[in-house]
Amino acid sequence: MRISRFIVPTLKEDPSDAVVLSHRLMVRAGLMRKESSGMYVYLPLGLRVLQKITAIVREEMNRAGAHEFLMPELTSAELWKESGRWDTMGPEMFRIKDRNNQEYALGPTHEEAFTGAMRSIISSYRDLPLNAYQINTKFRDEIRPRFGVIRSKEFIMKDAYSFDMDDKGLDESYQKMRTAYRRIFERCGLNTIPVEADTGSMGGSDSEEFMVPSEVGEEVLLLCDSCGYRANQEKAEYRRKESAIDNAEMEEIAEVDTPGVKTIDDLAGFFKCDPEKFLKSIIYLADGKPVMAVVPGDREINEHKLKNALGANELELAPDTVVEDVTAAPVGFAGPVSDIDVPVIHDLSVKILRNCITGANKNDTHYSGVNPGRDFKIEREADITSAVENDPCPGCGSPMYVKKGIEVGHIFKLGYKYTKSMNLTVLDENGSAVNPIMGCYGIGINRTMAAVVEQNNDERGIIWPVSIAPFQVHLVGIARQDDQSAEVDRIYGYLCESGFDVLYDDRKVSPGFKFADADLVGIPVRVTVGKSFFNGGDIELKSRGAGDMETVKEDMLVNRINELLNS
Amino acid sequence: MRISRFIVPTLKEDPSDAVVLSHRLMVRAGLMRKESSGMYVYLPLGLRVLQKITAIVREEMNRAGAHEFLMPELTSAELWKESGRWDTMGPEMFRIKDRNNQEYALGPTHEEAFTGAMRSIISSYRDLPLNAYQINTKFRDEIRPRFGVIRSKEFIMKDAYSFDMDDKGLDESYQKMRTAYRRIFERCGLNTIPVEADTGSMGGSDSEEFMVPSEVGEEVLLLCDSCGYRANQEKAEYRRKESAIDNAEMEEIAEVDTPGVKTIDDLAGFFKCDPEKFLKSIIYLADGKPVMAVVPGDREINEHKLKNALGANELELAPDTVVEDVTAAPVGFAGPVSDIDVPVIHDLSVKILRNCITGANKNDTHYSGVNPGRDFKIEREADITSAVENDPCPGCGSPMYVKKGIEVGHIFKLGYKYTKSMNLTVLDENGSAVNPIMGCYGIGINRTMAAVVEQNNDERGIIWPVSIAPFQVHLVGIARQDDQSAEVDRIYGYLCESGFDVLYDDRKVSPGFKFADADLVGIPVRVTVGKSFFNGGDIELKSRGAGDMETVKEDMLVNRINELLNS
Repeated sequence: MRISRFIVPTLKEDPSDAVVLSHRLMVRAGLMRKESSGMYVYLPLGLRVLQKITAIVREEMNRAGAHEFLMPELTSAELWKESGRWDTMGPEMFRIKDRNNQEYALGPTHEEAFTGAMRSIISSYRDLPLNAYQINTKFRDEIRPRFGVIRSKEFIMKDAYSFDMDDKGLDESYQKMRTAYRRIFERCGLNTIPVEADTGSMGGSDSEEFMVPSEVGEEVLLLCDSCGYRANQEKAEYRRKESAIDNAEMEEIAEVDTPGVKTIDDLAGFFKCDPEKFLKSIIYLADGKPVMAVVPGDREINEHKLKNALGANELELAPDTVVEDVTAAPVGFAGPVSDIDVPVIHDLSVKILRNCITGANKNDTHYSGVNPGRDFKIEREADITSAVENDPCPGCGSPMYVKKGIEVGHIFKLGYKYTKSMNLTVLDENGSAVNPIMGCYGIGINRTMAAVVEQNNDERGIIWPVSIAPFQVHLVGIARQDDQSAEVDRIYGYLCESGFDVLYDDRKVSPGFKFADADLVGIPVRVTVGKSFFNGGDIELKSRGAGDMETVKEDMLVNRINELLNS
Repeated sequence: MRISRFIVPTLKEDPSDAVVLSHRLMVRAGLMRKESSGMYVYLPLGLRVLQKITAIVREEMNRAGAHEFLMPELTSAELWKESGRWDTMGPEMFRIKDRNNQEYALGPTHEEAFTGAMRSIISSYRDLPLNAYQINTKFRDEIRPRFGVIRSKEFIMKDAYSFDMDDKGLDESYQKMRTAYRRIFERCGLNTIPVEADTGSMGGSDSEEFMVPSEVGEEVLLLCDSCGYRANQEKAEYRRKESAIDNAEMEEIAEVDTPGVKTIDDLAGFFKCDPEKFLKSIIYLADGKPVMAVVPGDREINEHKLKNALGANELELAPDTVVEDVTAAPVGFAGPVSDIDVPVIHDLSVKILRNCITGANKNDTHYSGVNPGRDFKIEREADITSAVENDPCPGCGSPMYVKKGIEVGHIFKLGYKYTKSMNLTVLDENGSAVNPIMGCYGIGINRTMAAVVEQNNDERGIIWPVSIAPFQVHLVGIARQDDQSAEVDRIYGYLCESGFDVLYDDRKVSPGFKFADADLVGIPVRVTVGKSFFNGGDIELKSRGAGDMETVKEDMLVNRINELLNS
């Protein structure tokens, strides 16, 4: 493709609203433009990359035996009501009515659509296992779209849904997808870390996210190289260090006047002791009903774990009025010691603490010398604390370390949530109607593209992996006369006939300008035909990744390009 | 692909809500299922056809030098406000707000999106000509979705927008697209008729629609084989037959009591004369202001022409209260004779009428002997009548005939409407900022698929053109023992290795069931390996189109299939 007939509007300046590198480079290299907040236009160069990623995803899904469907993007509210998610999906789901007053969601995910459709498609155990996927546009009403296409309101997803007769079948389907995902990201030139993940509003059991380690990632990963434990923070198990077990003598419990001392910091100053001694007691509303959650004072409550432990659909911090009502005291004096009339859930680590300090559910008052088990019963406990750097690995006890990551893929075992609620059945071998068990599997196509850019760049621009580069060869012609232009045109024709995808910079601009654009756009092999060719037949080759410059004669050009592309 | 591992849920019964053949066959052959009114799920077999059509469209667009983009489907209201269409697009445009209260349209078309995006992409005459296209989902809030995917709420469109420096450039871009469209539909095996069309809300001058002649088409086409005139009814010029010129003596105008005689039929009975003698006078609201339109009593007003003639954005029949107000009489007695205080627009044919009858703008009263020109002035006239069968061709005067058609493509010259209102400029050779001139070009992908089915079928099912068939070869295995199954499997492998796309019916069902499914699904070549093969080495071949059955030995199989596919 000749640039003079193509559209590669590179920019020298970073777009003012771009805070992450991939966003800056994708706009500057002429791959995309912003349309409005969280909405992007793909230009031809960018779309070529998206299409190459899509082709890899499609190939690997087909190889894994999955079948491609295409669902409506406007998904009928009726379906969401059957599964119960019309009420539980939050404000991130766009909803719309047509002029006949029918309601739809602009599909953020398609469990309901696929499960609903399958009712008229599959009928027998012979139809299973079935893995159905689509590559389609998804919508998410992000309150704060950011990082370019990493968090946008409209994006392309590959989403797949497996239907199996039993757990064993689901295991197999899940493992096939796990393998396919590894292959997909590897083929896209992306290093990913699969981590254990929470299943969130999807329901289900096993769940893994494919994370691209990146400073701009919004996910926190807890990793252990000793045993290979990998989880995101929503899911990572928290274990109190063994050393934390306190065998001190139990002190007497005592009421202490603590006028105006409300926060953990205030308390640490007042009592002059380690924050872990304070029992942090927070009142939440779980599906609208108050509940108290208690963790050591030096730790944060993990709301994902808490929500799962309570089996709640919605969880939010209780407003002050509720806290005052529950504790019969101003906010800041809650605690599990005095009888209160709401359920209390303790972190698993609470029971090993000794001589703690906690609010007394009374204005300006705390208890000291509080001992769990003695001073209050632990009737309900669960892991509700967020694990952090240096916490012991739940696999081997070694200290874990932390990385940030961009989520590019997610696989989970859904179980029967949708097939039961939506009454999808097939006849088993005995002729009985049974619900299939489901898994679901997603890849963000645009986000994968951005993650590749985050991982593959230098100060001059993008360095595309060959597999998804918009072109393979960037031909720079430096011709001063018409006969020289004709020679470069001839080489262009020769490269095209040799089967390469070539972007040919045939513009009448300076060599420096062309080289800067070539580096910015990041096509794997740059071929320069200029003075040394016209004088001595030398063609310059440069690999965008390795950065090495070399010269070849024309008879070796095709071979050498192939070597560079395959290296 | 083995059917046992694929998803081809054919149905014996027609879906109850399907009134047209393509809809019935596409559901019965397992290509698609309904999700909700006007929304369809594509199954793998149907999606393969859609993807083949898409590939042909993409190939021909690229061949014509167009460049592929991808726009957001949620298009920002800001852009629609710039062009002025936020207010003029009717209720067929879905509108939605995000939670930050930003408004969007679910793009029914993308003139604004492309024009807006180009402001940061093109800057110089050197960037033109440019033809930018996308293949993307479009939305339309159809009040009455029908005919399966022919009129649905969500569909895939290829839409292209050309930008040129001048009329001459636009002509060239337009002709390139015209050629590309002819090639696309020809390659899809579709007979289309390009007809002159109205430019409607798009603005612009030349416009052609590509129509597939079909009894279920919703468009009425006026055709003349003598000179090749082809137009849709919205656009087709109406000329009164020469013979209609009435040279009768002018009678005196007279007021006639016509108690309760209001409709043209009532009048014909009362006055016992031809309906063409009545001046049909209808009050409309054009952009909210009343206007009277007058046509001969035997003809219908063409609201598209009327709207264009008035330069109105919106046109609707005036409510009774407005009619009563304008005519100072009940509905049914309007006419152009008495002075009324609103503009009157006459059809071009009104002036040749003699001795007409018309309402007197007075209760229960008409005038007879009315002569245009004498009894009322014609200050404004235009072609505002719908042409019908046997009307004289505007090209050559021969009588035109009528066909119904399905619109599958539309090309138009848009002019400067969007580049001016949205201030898209480029610098010309003198360094002055000028607005490019635009054209736009659409193809409905799903509708093309349905139109192919409407045109290619018999009583047993679909007959796919080879170019877009979901598979090329339908292999039917009729094996009674395992060793026979193994032989059919071997032939399957051989066909796949020979480069054919094969759907292999390896199910354990009766031959009759398999043959019926093969006919229904409509793959071009059916290959049957059964008794005659196991006994004497004869493989049966049947072309789904020609219907002839023949036998070949295995050594000639591949050659003969290729011949059938290429015939």
